[in-house]
Amino acid sequence: MKMQKGAFMRGTDNMILKEIPVPEVGEKEVLVSLEYVGICGSDVHYFHSGCCGAYKVDLAEDFMLGHECAGTVVKAGAGVEDLKIGDRVALEPGITCGKCEACKSGHYNLCPDVVFLATPPVQGCNEEYIAFPADMCFKLPENVSTKEGALIEPLSVGFYAAEQGTVNTGDTVIILGAGCIGLVTLLACKAHGAGQIIVADLVEARLNKALELGATAVVNSGKEDIFEKVKELTGGRGFDVVFETAGSAVTIAQTPFLVRRGGTITLVGISAQEEISYNFAQIMDKEATIKSVFRYKNIYPKAIAAVSSGAIEVRDIVTHEFNLEHIQEAYEEAVNNKTDLVKAVIKVK
Amino acid sequence: MKMQKGAFMRGTDNMILKEIPVPEVGEKEVLVSLEYVGICGSDVHYFHSGCCGAYKVDLAEDFMLGHECAGTVVKAGAGVEDLKIGDRVALEPGITCGKCEACKSGHYNLCPDVVFLATPPVQGCNEEYIAFPADMCFKLPENVSTKEGALIEPLSVGFYAAEQGTVNTGDTVIILGAGCIGLVTLLACKAHGAGQIIVADLVEARLNKALELGATAVVNSGKEDIFEKVKELTGGRGFDVVFETAGSAVTIAQTPFLVRRGGTITLVGISAQEEISYNFAQIMDKEATIKSVFRYKNIYPKAIAAVSSGAIEVRDIVTHEFNLEHIQEAYEEAVNNKTDLVKAVIKVK
Amino acid sequence: MKMQKGAFMRGTDNMILKEIPVPEVGEKEVLVSLEYVGICGSDVHYFHSGCCGAYKVDLAEDFMLGHECAGTVVKAGAGVEDLKIGDRVALEPGITCGKCEACKSGHYNLCPDVVFLATPPVQGCNEEYIAFPADMCFKLPENVSTKEGALIEPLSVGFYAAEQGTVNTGDTVIILGAGCIGLVTLLACKAHGAGQIIVADLVEARLNKALELGATAVVNSGKEDIFEKVKELTGGRGFDVVFETAGSAVTIAQTPFLVRRGGTITLVGISAQEEISYNFAQIMDKEATIKSVFRYKNIYPKAIAAVSSGAIEVRDIVTHEFNLEHIQEAYEEAVNNKTDLVKAVIKVK
Amino acid sequence: MKMQKGAFMRGTDNMILKEIPVPEVGEKEVLVSLEYVGICGSDVHYFHSGCCGAYKVDLAEDFMLGHECAGTVVKAGAGVEDLKIGDRVALEPGITCGKCEACKSGHYNLCPDVVFLATPPVQGCNEEYIAFPADMCFKLPENVSTKEGALIEPLSVGFYAAEQGTVNTGDTVIILGAGCIGLVTLLACKAHGAGQIIVADLVEARLNKALELGATAVVNSGKEDIFEKVKELTGGRGFDVVFETAGSAVTIAQTPFLVRRGGTITLVGISAQEEISYNFAQIMDKEATIKSVFRYKNIYPKAIAAVSSGAIEVRDIVTHEFNLEHIQEAYEEAVNNKTDLVKAVIKVK
Repeated sequence: MKMQKGAFMRGTDNMILKEIPVPEVGEKEVLVSLEYVGICGSDVHYFHSGCCGAYKVDLAEDFMLGHECAGTVVKAGAGVEDLKIGDRVALEPGITCGKCEACKSGHYNLCPDVVFLATPPVQGCNEEYIAFPADMCFKLPENVSTKEGALIEPLSVGFYAAEQGTVNTGDTVIILGAGCIGLVTLLACKAHGAGQIIVADLVEARLNKALELGATAVVNSGKEDIFEKVKELTGGRGFDVVFETAGSAVTIAQTPFLVRRGGTITLVGISAQEEISYNFAQIMDKEATIKSVFRYKNIYPKAIAAVSSGAIEVRDIVTHEFNLEHIQEAYEEAVNNKTDLVKAVIKVK
Repeated sequence: MKMQKGAFMRGTDNMILKEIPVPEVGEKEVLVSLEYVGICGSDVHYFHSGCCGAYKVDLAEDFMLGHECAGTVVKAGAGVEDLKIGDRVALEPGITCGKCEACKSGHYNLCPDVVFLATPPVQGCNEEYIAFPADMCFKLPENVSTKEGALIEPLSVGFYAAEQGTVNTGDTVIILGAGCIGLVTLLACKAHGAGQIIVADLVEARLNKALELGATAVVNSGKEDIFEKVKELTGGRGFDVVFETAGSAVTIAQTPFLVRRGGTITLVGISAQEEISYNFAQIMDKEATIKSVFRYKNIYPKAIAAVSSGAIEVRDIVTHEFNLEHIQEAYEEAVNNKTDLVKAVIKVK
Repeated sequence: MKMQKGAFMRGTDNMILKEIPVPEVGEKEVLVSLEYVGICGSDVHYFHSGCCGAYKVDLAEDFMLGHECAGTVVKAGAGVEDLKIGDRVALEPGITCGKCEACKSGHYNLCPDVVFLATPPVQGCNEEYIAFPADMCFKLPENVSTKEGALIEPLSVGFYAAEQGTVNTGDTVIILGAGCIGLVTLLACKAHGAGQIIVADLVEARLNKALELGATAVVNSGKEDIFEKVKELTGGRGFDVVFETAGSAVTIAQTPFLVRRGGTITLVGISAQEEISYNFAQIMDKEATIKSVFRYKNIYPKAIAAVSSGAIEVRDIVTHEFNLEHIQEAYEEAVNNKTDLVKAVIKVK
Repeated sequence: MKMQKGAFMRGTDNMILKEIPVPEVGEKEVLVSLEYVGICGSDVHYFHSGCCGAYKVDLAEDFMLGHECAGTVVKAGAGVEDLKIGDRVALEPGITCGKCEACKSGHYNLCPDVVFLATPPVQGCNEEYIAFPADMCFKLPENVSTKEGALIEPLSVGFYAAEQGTVNTGDTVIILGAGCIGLVTLLACKAHGAGQIIVADLVEARLNKALELGATAVVNSGKEDIFEKVKELTGGRGFDVVFETAGSAVTIAQTPFLVRRGGTITLVGISAQEEISYNFAQIMDKEATIKSVFRYKNIYPKAIAAVSSGAIEVRDIVTHEFNLEHIQEAYEEAVNNKTDLVKAVIKVK
């Protein structure tokens, strides 16, 4: 039996490397030799606290994190037609049933039977090899690296947010929060042809990153009155689309006052607080629409195309890179660095 | 100068009839001899309290209420092409600029320069004759009466709610609130081919009216647990579309728990309370969409067609009818009757 | 081994009944005791000529036709959750992969790997029992019979045509062709709240059927000039939606002259003639949209709901009914009766 | 009375300059000192043949061409709020009624009462000053020149084509025809985030221009088999969106064979030939949608934003520039240069 290295959390705040078998490749599956795996906010939550939202890791057992990954096909199972050995691929980590009402109508992100990598009890992909359904492995063009490939997953959240927000060419946009999801939303808005893109956050380093990635202007909501600053920047019209990516009660409550009449608010950030006091009078007076984002659907090809065409430079969001051997250090940094860490990735090999 | 009778509020809770001139008909206007004028919830608010939302009647002067009306064309101004004397018409009461961004993009209900009948300081139509832009007067087919014509205005709110909620054939729908707006929403859902239509309210008489108008089932939220009852009626799937027409903080807060995954909540009722505690965690987990309704746009022809085809019987929502001479009594009844009054109309002549 | 009767075409124009095994029920499948099977135009083509469009029956072997069916669940395979013995169901006859780009995006009707009943080499359902994936069997409400259940398949083509044509409440509609597909399109337009619905055909009996099913008016294109008649009926505005269901070059060529500016043409009928001379100048001047219909997708629940709510009476399209023993006679009648046969169904048991 | 120079065609192929009065500025109008006016294909048709499609110049009188223009506001009429002297603006040349069904529903490009510059009998803008409704004058940001401003009109056709074609990020696109409209469609597709963009034409110079403006690849349909070349470039999947901008029967007839299953064909080029033989069997088998383009609507702000953000470089489509004094030469060049002229503009002052 061929063996590989896999990283597991053993209790919270603790990563170990183990030798585990390289999996067999099933029908319509490919075996992918992984090259990069990103560290997502949810991974960090599981690592540090053992849970993320309603999901809990069973701490009595080792658990493998990681769901943002890319690599090279090294074996193709029976019935695989569209991929061959040597193809470089990005993996979409949610396997859905294809049979329920949600799947049949194209909303597979809402499939109740989804199996999603690194969402307990489903293991993740912090390892060297994974066997995965071929239809969930998206071939990367020559000019897209596997490092960029591993970033397609978070980028897809941004693309889906832009799609749910129906961002159109020329639209004015504000993004509340400049963490990883805020920044991929910024990139997606650029790819969709948005006009003015303003980003607000409390952390100066993140705002600088936003400017570097193409924001038209930024607002430090800790130092400036966001409503006054925005009025100055836009002339008071309100934004065509408002994205909330910080998940805080404060920023969610700001959204009705930022959107223009007839505009769209898109909720992307997940709040720890279930109930939030919200000004629906503003919403109704403006006939605003509120959309929300649950993972993504049918986005990988679009996100890959945007990276390949050069419309956006997704690799610029990576601020930290670690080898698999240093995964403990990588996760610790992701937990502790609240200033200049935007995105950390693990180089598997 | 030809004279006519007009009804005005003089101070709150007081209606007087005055002789006023019949207006001249301008270019592209028609003079309409009014036959029916409905009494809307906003009229009742102005009459009883002098204000409605942010709008206030200047009580130092007489003010004419009424904006739901229909009648017969008796004169056509220069340049009127599509209407002639004798045509029976329903009037759409909001005149918009046609030039702003909202108007040009088809969202004229959001025109900042709208002139809307009976919204202070613009006078209403509780009178015998009105001169009105021909393009805002919609011809009624032979089989639609002017009494039905006067109901096209509230019905349009229901149709627009169904449109904003993207009600599709076969959709399951719940309507919170069985007042006039709840009931026209019910009629509109029927016209759009909705499947199961459930209506919830606290007043038994209204629920009976809902059943009479075609609701599949009703819930008395005062006597039954709405969530349990609904689970029993639907098998727990959640509704494709949830309409909130009551405008209360309680019912608004119920909406995230009633909608299905991927479904749509449509806010129609205007709440007196600006800030409402709302469970956005449910919204995000379900990827629900929240739409809202500000008046309506491009709806009159659809609503008239639905009445004409017999798909719905809008006249059945009228519970009370008064002559113009008894308008004081009519408005008092509208203020005080909290049980079996759904819709009152004034018969002008 | 339990046996059942199955009807097969043996050469063209010839039906035989054979004893065949009742199939085993697989995982996530149910065994359905069939009660009604409709005869579709494609069945008639295969029976009489051995082919339909590009598809050919291998006449060296017996081939079972039939794909419009309903019955009662008599056995449930492992993993079936939503159906139980005794449930009455309508079968959606196209099984798709759930994994390709078309399926994932909700357009499963375009799945290249579809397995569709009675499309050679896939056998049909002119038999007593069929084992079928549970997710393709749609439960019928108590007030919908299995005879109506068998009609859900053709009705779904009509509903999908209405959906592709984006028929809205109040829309004016013309349907070219009053065969079975024209008539189910008429029913679907009614369910979608269309206003004026005009139907054109050459056969008087079909036009009478259209009137019986709710057409506002009909045009006998053999006796009347369709353009003049339509102008008289509509005042010359053109139709919001034009449906072409006859599949003839003549009617397809009429569509640009019938649609209004900005309206939609929906092609439903399949033409024997590949190339058709078409006036694109009209299309461009009117900025009309041309949509087409390939089978249907995500329609069964809507069509069943519309039948259950009483919005439409689909059973009224059945003009002929035969027992399974008389299937030869049934198919002969379907081939030869060009006047009053709209829809024939086989009563299996 | 202040006088200005205006260019008029006097008979075909002949331009004269005349002294004419500077117009008075009416209510809600501004007086614009024009700086650039583009020469459109329609201008060239009128100049050389006296007609364009169904429209004819009355050759008994002088007629002013030109409808693509930009300049600086020098006077503001009563009631103008959003513009002031010194603002640089691009003019949208079609003034619509704002009152008809098309206008109210946002489709003002289909207004039957449109007054469109340089569409006989309405005079154009080949002159120094024009008085124009303020709501049709779009303010240019600091970084957009008036030369670019004059190009917003043709660019809007491209943007509207992309919008009608529902071009999405990552979509694969083919554009048939690389004249001015083909090239602005290419720019618009880039701004909308299209992935692979292939352009086909017969003229090498135009294809080189397409590559310079950002086409992924080009096909010389005169030298290469378009279907083979495209298969090689795309792997045979067919295009998400096919744009026909050449208006020839040959290219229109190619569209059904180039689009993917479920894809969209967008007709932009106006054919001299009304009836075209078209393969609807392909359309139906692929369930393709055919959209068309009549001018544009609600596009100027988007197109201006895309130029301002640097997403596209519209000025690169200009190949020839002339002073107003040389307008005869400019129009002659536009008539005769079939090789390297893509877009000619007149510098007014």
